[in-house]
Amino acid sequence: MPDICLAGTGGMLPLKDRYLTGCFLEYNGKAILIDCGEGMQVALASSDLKISRIEMILITHNHADHVTGLPGLLLSMGNCSREEPIDIYLPESAERVVRNLISVCGRLPFDVRLHMLPDKEAVSFTADKIDPMLTVYTLPVRHSVKCLAYSMLLEKKAVFQPDKAQSLGVPVKMWRVLHSGEAVTLDDGRVIQPDEVLGDKRPPVKVTYVTDTLPIDPIVNFAKDADLFICEGMYGDADKKQSMNEKGHMLMQDACRLAEKACVKELWLTHYSPAEKHPENFEKELKKLFPNVIISKDGEKKTL
Amino acid sequence: MPDICLAGTGGMLPLKDRYLTGCFLEYNGKAILIDCGEGMQVALASSDLKISRIEMILITHNHADHVTGLPGLLLSMGNCSREEPIDIYLPESAERVVRNLISVCGRLPFDVRLHMLPDKEAVSFTADKIDPMLTVYTLPVRHSVKCLAYSMLLEKKAVFQPDKAQSLGVPVKMWRVLHSGEAVTLDDGRVIQPDEVLGDKRPPVKVTYVTDTLPIDPIVNFAKDADLFICEGMYGDADKKQSMNEKGHMLMQDACRLAEKACVKELWLTHYSPAEKHPENFEKELKKLFPNVIISKDGEKKTL
Repeated sequence: MPDICLAGTGGMLPLKDRYLTGCFLEYNGKAILIDCGEGMQVALASSDLKISRIEMILITHNHADHVTGLPGLLLSMGNCSREEPIDIYLPESAERVVRNLISVCGRLPFDVRLHMLPDKEAVSFTADKIDPMLTVYTLPVRHSVKCLAYSMLLEKKAVFQPDKAQSLGVPVKMWRVLHSGEAVTLDDGRVIQPDEVLGDKRPPVKVTYVTDTLPIDPIVNFAKDADLFICEGMYGDADKKQSMNEKGHMLMQDACRLAEKACVKELWLTHYSPAEKHPENFEKELKKLFPNVIISKDGEKKTL
Repeated sequence: MPDICLAGTGGMLPLKDRYLTGCFLEYNGKAILIDCGEGMQVALASSDLKISRIEMILITHNHADHVTGLPGLLLSMGNCSREEPIDIYLPESAERVVRNLISVCGRLPFDVRLHMLPDKEAVSFTADKIDPMLTVYTLPVRHSVKCLAYSMLLEKKAVFQPDKAQSLGVPVKMWRVLHSGEAVTLDDGRVIQPDEVLGDKRPPVKVTYVTDTLPIDPIVNFAKDADLFICEGMYGDADKKQSMNEKGHMLMQDACRLAEKACVKELWLTHYSPAEKHPENFEKELKKLFPNVIISKDGEKKTL
């Protein structure tokens, strides 16, 4: 099952005791990193996350607190003798900034492949490098610059039922093929279909990551039924609502309302303002809006 | 007198417990920052150094551990409502990388003025913004890319002697002019020269900052008689000498030998390799080479 970790929970500026927001999702020993602000390589190391496992980086937008850690991270990967290419997905409007940052690295011992995503329409693609059953979805959100939210959906194979396979006389060496969804032909000529040996399909695992946006309605559907909804909450003080509206951000309360409408299982708040020193002070109030809210701290971890 | 602080002491990679090397020299409430690797704004804050006081930034070379903190630092200055221009001095070979990094900031509420310095010849310029008596000197050193060392020399005014001024009948309001080195004309027509009221000239204060270079001979003259010589020492283990030669770095022992030859008053080691976990273990050995060596830690401070 995927392991997920919020390496940092800060917005705008890295602080001495709070790294910038970045999310690490690991599955099958391979990882996706979402966003890479200044100091991300240190944030990852502080949470014992291995940069060598990162295969894909998803960038939400071109603001410094989401991208300036890229040169340091890529150079560190080079120092660790990485040779495999890395794939970076980003909104097309972030291309210039990201290319400029990568140019700082000079020659790297591996390829950096940029994949530009549309700014204005939702798309999806398979995260083959992690797992062919993992799909990434984007949603354009509303910030001061073009910004994307991401959902990751991992389809899960139906449970394999050894007793049924045995009763049909399927050799053990063919079980793996059947479990992966392909039919097999036995020595006696019989063709066995996967659904003859598989149980009910299990529900997929869904993680939705939304930051740097107004709490727009499309987020509700985008995060629908997520097992984990990671969402910005810059402030917990309602007096900041007007300022957040102007800057294209949301309050912790907004995130809770989105979580409630989207019927997500759990909400992790993140991307706190540097001026919000104690987001945990709002826990009681927020739990009334959405009981399964976690006021995340750097290094918040979970296996889904 | 100038206050100096090494905000970080790491080389190559920022670590959880060691920021990247950066030096903050403050005088008259205004500061020079030398180098700005990833996380520098956090390193400065951790040592209680005010980014609002930075008037000039000196860059040694274009490697990521010396420059990638620039966008974050400049944006933070903008968040603090800075409007005054900032002056960045850099070797001309670092221009592209530094411009690319600054472009990440988008629009800033103040001007960033780049001053390209020759890569291949030593130059000097007055740091007027800090003090007209402060001069910065450069020295091209030998690294894998073009790199500059910096010396800062603060001339000190001779001591003003009030008894002499009084006996000559100079009104108190004219003392400041004389102390600054200009003659004054009294009401009775007499012209008083500064040397009539000033004591002996005091020796200047000199700080030399050398990193990312082989221990080349010209450094000895460049650091000559410095009150403080800040110098890289990647490793303390002599087995690393060959590797350091290849990479254009030096050992702690090399720095001590340079300090001894240059007759500096004090040496601060810095820019330790991330693999050098305990540079302090070499203190006893290094003190035999140069007794006034300090194995600096992040936040090392001194008033000169």
